[in-house]
Amino acid sequence: MDRPDKDLAFLLRYENIAWYDDGAVRILDRRCYPRKVEFVTCTRHEEVRDAIRDMVTQSAGPYTAAAMGMALAAHECRRKSEAEQRVFLTEAANCISHARPTTAKRMEQICGMMLDAAEKAWAGGAPVSETIKRRAIEVNNARYQKIEKIATYLVDRFPENGTILTQCFAETIVGMMLKEAKARGKRLRIFCPETRPYFQGARLTATVCYEMGFDVTVITDNMPAFVMQNEGVDVFTSAADAICMDGSVINKVGTFQIAIAAKHLGVPYYVTGAPDRMHASAKDVRIELRNPDFVLQAMGQKTARDGVKGYYPAFDVTPPELVTGVVTDRGIFDPHALDRYVSDADAYEVVV
Amino acid sequence: MDRPDKDLAFLLRYENIAWYDDGAVRILDRRCYPRKVEFVTCTRHEEVRDAIRDMVTQSAGPYTAAAMGMALAAHECRRKSEAEQRVFLTEAANCISHARPTTAKRMEQICGMMLDAAEKAWAGGAPVSETIKRRAIEVNNARYQKIEKIATYLVDRFPENGTILTQCFAETIVGMMLKEAKARGKRLRIFCPETRPYFQGARLTATVCYEMGFDVTVITDNMPAFVMQNEGVDVFTSAADAICMDGSVINKVGTFQIAIAAKHLGVPYYVTGAPDRMHASAKDVRIELRNPDFVLQAMGQKTARDGVKGYYPAFDVTPPELVTGVVTDRGIFDPHALDRYVSDADAYEVVV
Repeated sequence: MDRPDKDLAFLLRYENIAWYDDGAVRILDRRCYPRKVEFVTCTRHEEVRDAIRDMVTQSAGPYTAAAMGMALAAHECRRKSEAEQRVFLTEAANCISHARPTTAKRMEQICGMMLDAAEKAWAGGAPVSETIKRRAIEVNNARYQKIEKIATYLVDRFPENGTILTQCFAETIVGMMLKEAKARGKRLRIFCPETRPYFQGARLTATVCYEMGFDVTVITDNMPAFVMQNEGVDVFTSAADAICMDGSVINKVGTFQIAIAAKHLGVPYYVTGAPDRMHASAKDVRIELRNPDFVLQAMGQKTARDGVKGYYPAFDVTPPELVTGVVTDRGIFDPHALDRYVSDADAYEVVV
Repeated sequence: MDRPDKDLAFLLRYENIAWYDDGAVRILDRRCYPRKVEFVTCTRHEEVRDAIRDMVTQSAGPYTAAAMGMALAAHECRRKSEAEQRVFLTEAANCISHARPTTAKRMEQICGMMLDAAEKAWAGGAPVSETIKRRAIEVNNARYQKIEKIATYLVDRFPENGTILTQCFAETIVGMMLKEAKARGKRLRIFCPETRPYFQGARLTATVCYEMGFDVTVITDNMPAFVMQNEGVDVFTSAADAICMDGSVINKVGTFQIAIAAKHLGVPYYVTGAPDRMHASAKDVRIELRNPDFVLQAMGQKTARDGVKGYYPAFDVTPPELVTGVVTDRGIFDPHALDRYVSDADAYEVVV
């Protein structure tokens, strides 16, 4: 493994993060990290879409990639007229936003913010690509600051000596949560389900936990209930690809069945993130079915014989009755009362 | 893949099955099947114990291997006096029975039957090794006939066009269940969780289903709840390493969490096998913790970075309240009333 410290820093660095520079977007390839530290370099915005679709980056990575991809698109069309640039960027936003169906709405929102930045650049005569890049960094920084607040509320829920169960790789919140726990002197033992078929839990979450100095154990995806029953898990926590206004949680497939088991075994489940006004309920979300052949292999080795079919839903829906609390930047909310997060900027509600 | 038909036949052949011949026990290596068809040849009974411990065979395979290993032990000590043979075989029974902790009691029972056969051989002046081998075949045939009956009761619970969810590789019952379904013209779609870390579901169960002509789909171990929710699963079924008299089911880790999800989603869970008088409750069973490093790899490829720990409970315990029915050779029993299976040979009870 190459320079893991440098690359953990890469995963967790949150201020002024820029993946775009000088006509290229560089994306850490999470499909092989930490075994290999490689970057995919995109010099056309369609390549950014492909990288998102092909899981080069995941969790919150696609949001950064999308915004930086818009800076790249502005670079691509820099010699065109303003009117032509407007058409080009609108098409690029559409292209990148629809890399993966389940997250399309949030991606559209982010790309829309970059289009707004472009409008300002044109109005003020500023360089479009640089303006978008700066806006992308700003949006990222704001998101990271939110996540820092979320981490403080989440860590409130952990005991001084606690055992935590995760699911998939929750990007920044994992690092923030551990940083916060460390700052408060909380000692955590962390169990990470490996998260098939991409092993994000084994490869990414466990790496971050280990490199931040925590006691971390990887389990296979058929073990969470056993671990909750036998290893004194205090909290099950995950991030979400979307938290609907009705409290439904869209996250990596497997979250649903861990949440069912957690409820059955009396382990609280805290999901982190902000409720998403664009999704009234899970009905508004299209669950992405990815290439079924991918579940018929593991780390590139075929597992099943020819002729056997695969099935690969990337996400699942956890209903609000299985969620103990939604941990937001404004406190912890009852999943059945998320409208308060939106309607009242000063809302702070703790459920247990 | 080499001659899969021949080797599927090997897995499913149930009459007069003999793994022992001429001073050697030959065991199909299920760790690499169906990718490679290889046999482990044991010429000392300790090698049979090692093969069982090292997962060369699994599910009901160890019971056949143990009995045949006793025939091998008798061959090993054939030149000793009767008194010395008795000591040697008793030690061999002890050695083989304790290859894996969770199944030790049933293994002791099987090896005990082989010791009884040896006593008869000594009393009657018959060759000990051949007598044990014949007894091993007899015991296997009786077990297979039982499983054939179990299959008829299980298939009663399947609709004409049904969707079935399995767990791990349930050896003979999978083949018997499919044979019976085929004979009755029931059309089944089968979902097999891959069953990490050994992939028995992807490699073994799915192979048997496919080669018997069924529509079979492999999923990863984080997908059963999603599949039950979205693909109209009619029945979740598994075999068991032990069914305790109180209705607790000891089976491959993951069974517990699928059963929790099945209950939550209203999918019936039928476990196949006979209640085991040697186990009053799950308290009598020691759950085997295997080498933790094995969960840090997949198909021989390392998944997590150095320093990250693993954890590998091989089995879990599903309590009776999550079990719809125990499908035995005497009918389907309420898991809370298994004493009737034992006390009343004519008992036939259908729940649900």
